[in-house]
Amino acid sequence: MSDLPKQVEVIEVGPRDGLQIEPRILSTAEKARMVDALADSGIRQIEVGSFVNPKAVPQMADTPELFDQLDKRPGVRYRALWLNPKGLERALANGHVDMDGKLTLTASETFVKRNTNRSIDETFEQMPDWIDSYRKAGIGADSLGVMAAFGCNFEGYIPEQKVIDLIARTMEIMAANGCTLRHLSLADTMGWGTPGQMKSMVGKVRDKWPELHLKLHLHDTRGCAVANAVAAMEMGVAEFDSSVGGLGGCPFAGHKGAAGNVCTEDLVFACQEMGVDTGIDLDALVEAAKMTEELVGHVLPGKVMKGGTLTRWKEQRV
Amino acid sequence: MSDLPKQVEVIEVGPRDGLQIEPRILSTAEKARMVDALADSGIRQIEVGSFVNPKAVPQMADTPELFDQLDKRPGVRYRALWLNPKGLERALANGHVDMDGKLTLTASETFVKRNTNRSIDETFEQMPDWIDSYRKAGIGADSLGVMAAFGCNFEGYIPEQKVIDLIARTMEIMAANGCTLRHLSLADTMGWGTPGQMKSMVGKVRDKWPELHLKLHLHDTRGCAVANAVAAMEMGVAEFDSSVGGLGGCPFAGHKGAAGNVCTEDLVFACQEMGVDTGIDLDALVEAAKMTEELVGHVLPGKVMKGGTLTRWKEQRV
Repeated sequence: MSDLPKQVEVIEVGPRDGLQIEPRILSTAEKARMVDALADSGIRQIEVGSFVNPKAVPQMADTPELFDQLDKRPGVRYRALWLNPKGLERALANGHVDMDGKLTLTASETFVKRNTNRSIDETFEQMPDWIDSYRKAGIGADSLGVMAAFGCNFEGYIPEQKVIDLIARTMEIMAANGCTLRHLSLADTMGWGTPGQMKSMVGKVRDKWPELHLKLHLHDTRGCAVANAVAAMEMGVAEFDSSVGGLGGCPFAGHKGAAGNVCTEDLVFACQEMGVDTGIDLDALVEAAKMTEELVGHVLPGKVMKGGTLTRWKEQRV
Repeated sequence: MSDLPKQVEVIEVGPRDGLQIEPRILSTAEKARMVDALADSGIRQIEVGSFVNPKAVPQMADTPELFDQLDKRPGVRYRALWLNPKGLERALANGHVDMDGKLTLTASETFVKRNTNRSIDETFEQMPDWIDSYRKAGIGADSLGVMAAFGCNFEGYIPEQKVIDLIARTMEIMAANGCTLRHLSLADTMGWGTPGQMKSMVGKVRDKWPELHLKLHLHDTRGCAVANAVAAMEMGVAEFDSSVGGLGGCPFAGHKGAAGNVCTEDLVFACQEMGVDTGIDLDALVEAAKMTEELVGHVLPGKVMKGGTLTRWKEQRV
């Protein structure tokens, strides 16, 4: 396992991707308490909320107020999601969001139409406007997220070449508009991937664009999320979105069995036990997971929060 | 991933390791229905029950009757567990059990004392009697299971050399008593292992004894079970105990967070999607998991049974 990265960066998306499917609407103060606990465990990037239509995602209605109330810890990036120009405007207007110049694609034609009412081509057509909006806000567009990059419940397996072509086409548009892709996030939005697919896809991307910083956004829909993260780590991937307690699921994924993201503390456990540094205090993180469980009011799927950490034995570790 | 085995054999232990912790005592007919559904999904080895003290494990009290009532499918091995000579006698007397000449050790001194009231040395001292008992029954002792081979909640990490030494000592005793070790099962009884540990331990065992058939018995206590199975597969391991729906947990593992075995259908899903044949009809297996969930009366941790299989897309698979 000597090919594992020395360090892995965990981007906590529980407060956004996790909470958005929860029926109980947390108060802004409760969300702030959850975000604080996550930051205090050593997580350095947190997706706090999203600037989307409050009618579509009621849980995210107070994202502006939440950002206003955050007691920001030094060194922590408090990020947000937006899906249209209006959302970007609101995030900018808030003034407390650590902004990213992020473009988003979906590799499934059917899913992108259901989710955004646009085709893939139409998504590409809007990219110059996005880049321009970012530039006007003083932000360089340098990041791309590809949703449903492995498979789609409406369309089936996504061919790897399709994803490669989407990335290449984005790079061309970015170049024509004076910016450069540096950060690529591949999302297994509906949990189709297995370790074999991860290795194959990551290998193809790395072969073609070795300079790209690659992140994976994994869902545990079919039980492979930790295995997929480990497979990606073995291919050098050192950045993962994850969700405290395994919270969440995508309300638009088309079936009630949609599962949450890879569980943050289960992923951190695997990293720590394999000698991969995350900078995170696992026991503090488990406390944050337990607090989250109390806030949402039901058992979360995370395993380490029930099975217990092994930190009290760490002096034995070879 | 070309180093994965072409075929993986799944030994379903849900009716034994899974059910034994369940508070609802299933009727013998319900258990038979569960075992039939598992066999009909294509599973070729099923641990049906255990011949242990009914007072210690009430759920297993009807194991003899269950074996009497089984409508055995051709080509399926219906196995059982026994922990002492009396249990072996009862299994033999039943006449319907597919017997194994299995010896058992525990790598943790503290756990073996709590679990069996014997030391590791005392376990070794009894081995010649076990071998003799098997021989009298016409069974060659050829199998060893090592429990808590990766870590123990009472004692900490188990050094790999300790496990290697336990196996070597068993081999010496077997040789002195006219039999040969052919099947080795390493159990991560309390879910301590990570993919790195799996690869390291399996590598050491394979280097030293390449001729041994190696099986892993994994628990998902800390969320790594599928990842551990995949890591072991990458090292050539082609046999795994698993539990339908992720049912179960060890009642003697010393903390309420003890989780079930690696989930059979989640493991089979990972295998199938990576081109590893299990001989199992995943959709039928998911139906068996849903039936099991109804029988135990609570949600099981399995993911594919909620997220859905991908078999309807299989003609797309490359």
